[in-house]
Amino acid sequence: MATTRLIDYAEASPAVRAIYDDIRATRKSDFINNFWKALAVNPEQLKRTWDGLKAVMAPGAIDALTKEFIYIAVSAANGCEYCIHSHTAAARTKGMSEAQYAELIAVIGMAHATNGLATTMQVPVDDVFKVT
Amino acid sequence: MATTRLIDYAEASPAVRAIYDDIRATRKSDFINNFWKALAVNPEQLKRTWDGLKAVMAPGAIDALTKEFIYIAVSAANGCEYCIHSHTAAARTKGMSEAQYAELIAVIGMAHATNGLATTMQVPVDDVFKVT
Amino acid sequence: MATTRLIDYAEASPAVRAIYDDIRATRKSDFINNFWKALAVNPEQLKRTWDGLKAVMAPGAIDALTKEFIYIAVSAANGCEYCIHSHTAAARTKGMSEAQYAELIAVIGMAHATNGLATTMQVPVDDVFKVT
Amino acid sequence: MATTRLIDYAEASPAVRAIYDDIRATRKSDFINNFWKALAVNPEQLKRTWDGLKAVMAPGAIDALTKEFIYIAVSAANGCEYCIHSHTAAARTKGMSEAQYAELIAVIGMAHATNGLATTMQVPVDDVFKVT
Amino acid sequence: MATTRLIDYAEASPAVRAIYDDIRATRKSDFINNFWKALAVNPEQLKRTWDGLKAVMAPGAIDALTKEFIYIAVSAANGCEYCIHSHTAAARTKGMSEAQYAELIAVIGMAHATNGLATTMQVPVDDVFKVT
Amino acid sequence: MATTRLIDYAEASPAVRAIYDDIRATRKSDFINNFWKALAVNPEQLKRTWDGLKAVMAPGAIDALTKEFIYIAVSAANGCEYCIHSHTAAARTKGMSEAQYAELIAVIGMAHATNGLATTMQVPVDDVFKVT
Repeated sequence: MATTRLIDYAEASPAVRAIYDDIRATRKSDFINNFWKALAVNPEQLKRTWDGLKAVMAPGAIDALTKEFIYIAVSAANGCEYCIHSHTAAARTKGMSEAQYAELIAVIGMAHATNGLATTMQVPVDDVFKVT
Repeated sequence: MATTRLIDYAEASPAVRAIYDDIRATRKSDFINNFWKALAVNPEQLKRTWDGLKAVMAPGAIDALTKEFIYIAVSAANGCEYCIHSHTAAARTKGMSEAQYAELIAVIGMAHATNGLATTMQVPVDDVFKVT
Repeated sequence: MATTRLIDYAEASPAVRAIYDDIRATRKSDFINNFWKALAVNPEQLKRTWDGLKAVMAPGAIDALTKEFIYIAVSAANGCEYCIHSHTAAARTKGMSEAQYAELIAVIGMAHATNGLATTMQVPVDDVFKVT
Repeated sequence: MATTRLIDYAEASPAVRAIYDDIRATRKSDFINNFWKALAVNPEQLKRTWDGLKAVMAPGAIDALTKEFIYIAVSAANGCEYCIHSHTAAARTKGMSEAQYAELIAVIGMAHATNGLATTMQVPVDDVFKVT
Repeated sequence: MATTRLIDYAEASPAVRAIYDDIRATRKSDFINNFWKALAVNPEQLKRTWDGLKAVMAPGAIDALTKEFIYIAVSAANGCEYCIHSHTAAARTKGMSEAQYAELIAVIGMAHATNGLATTMQVPVDDVFKVT
Repeated sequence: MATTRLIDYAEASPAVRAIYDDIRATRKSDFINNFWKALAVNPEQLKRTWDGLKAVMAPGAIDALTKEFIYIAVSAANGCEYCIHSHTAAARTKGMSEAQYAELIAVIGMAHATNGLATTMQVPVDDVFKVT
């Protein structure tokens, strides 16, 4: 039910294939998920997005699994069905335990609750929280 | 500019004061931030929210700082100005480094980008991502 | 800090003044709030919006105060600062008690919490809930 | 297509069964909807959410049906498919007429329209709407 | 899976049929899409919405295809599955090329990214951007 | 009230200065707006975002002003105060007339209205709208 075609490896242009090859090499798997196949409608955007994702999600000052937690949290609040599914699967692949998943949903649920409350009441930001 | 009054300790009912006391004891600080002062308009909801927050944000399978990252991510996607400020401050209090903050915003920005792309293209969820 | 000018009665065109006059007559008050002054940049849209609002918010199968509760709920979830303020004020004008306000925020907070949980877990809709 | 397992009564732990039993007794129905079966992955969060929902949605200064209207409004603005379905069904069970449903969607639609307009134009809040 | 019935032409009231007839005449097609069939539960809201849409989407200072781009952008950010599909189809009918679609998704993706970044960092609006 | 420091040219690292220089050269103006000064906390993300923005917003199959309309539409729906202000200013710089602005807000308002209606009623997507 996508609003655009999904482009498989076989029919992809050389520019798109080069990115698919890098996705496969980076992930050590032949599987290309639908997000990239849809994004291939715009090869430059495909490259920009993949290069950005690879750089941003690499472990650094924050480890790779924590980055997936953050990604799931954003995707849930934005209601992105595809992203919730793909990044929950990614978190499991990177070692998320069921105990961690249980706490993840609890934090996301609590954050939504207090977001709704603070916004409804238009609570003014305390001075001590302001940086600049 | 709140849409409700802020209730200070001095004017609070005994039920509200009991929660303010628990907030102070738990945080080892006399400071009560505006969110609780606004929520005190509904003492039962104040108690429910504080008890829930205290339980959910305690370190467990996920550590306390990571929980703040998740909280900031949800609050940013929901556009809750108050919550973004209070939980970014909380993350700093719990030890967030500037390097971690830099990566946190990068992950949040990337997640928003791919959320927008996947939703616009209505990318169908790959079968391998489905659990049940 | 609007991104457009606010148009006062004195400088308004006859078409805009006619709507301002109807707002004043309907509300039995000379006050024109900023929303209409900003919307006056597009007189047709101003008329369409005011006519729609007047018809939709009139008491019918749902009473006028309940309609304000619904309006506040949508505005809070959408994070519209202006609308939260104006419709909370409208609800108070229409008789909202502090006890009702206290319950209103509790329901809005709870709905946000379960929205966040159901979306994160992508809970499938039960068959019994489906109408068509 | 949930991102987690659904836990039926038969396989539930005693802690989860106790909550399922309370849901059944409170609602006078054996049916447990999918939301609770998914949330059972975290028994403490299941209990917190159910206890909160039961308290918040009970009739008080605002009646039970009006609370469902508010819940639907939040869920629609947040785009929570599951919650829209379950609370529209709940509203019908609690007596929502088709005339009320027709007005409910009109108010929700109007609120979305003016939310979009006020936010796009960044209309400043009138001083008379400010409480504190 | 709608939460309301869909009303076909054959079973529609004269008031609803009159609007269906205008939709058909305006679009030079017998097809009535599901949105209108659902909205027909409230004939006044159906008329208000159709009249508004017909007026707003007509070519003026902004051409009809550009208006569809704007509509898709809002619908994507709001996560409205139905609207994304119907307006992407409408844009194609009005001549959107694949090159334009490729750029459209790139702009939408970029806007989401910087929205997420600016909101997370709560960047203060520069004075030069303020109109009033 | 940002949650991070704003980094001026004078205190910026060589890597950040190089991007500021490119922003100035591209825009033919010495002005660096706050968004970039905040994003400079993460020089790699600053570079990635600026390079992406420059490429995506350049005129192509869609002209530069239309791209600003799309950007404003996304930013309004996401409630990003900063982005609404900066891109409305950018649209004016690129020649947006007041007549265009008037139609832009009308389309954004209408899209929000039908988004809210279609989502509340969970209208099923018509088969003819589906691409794949």
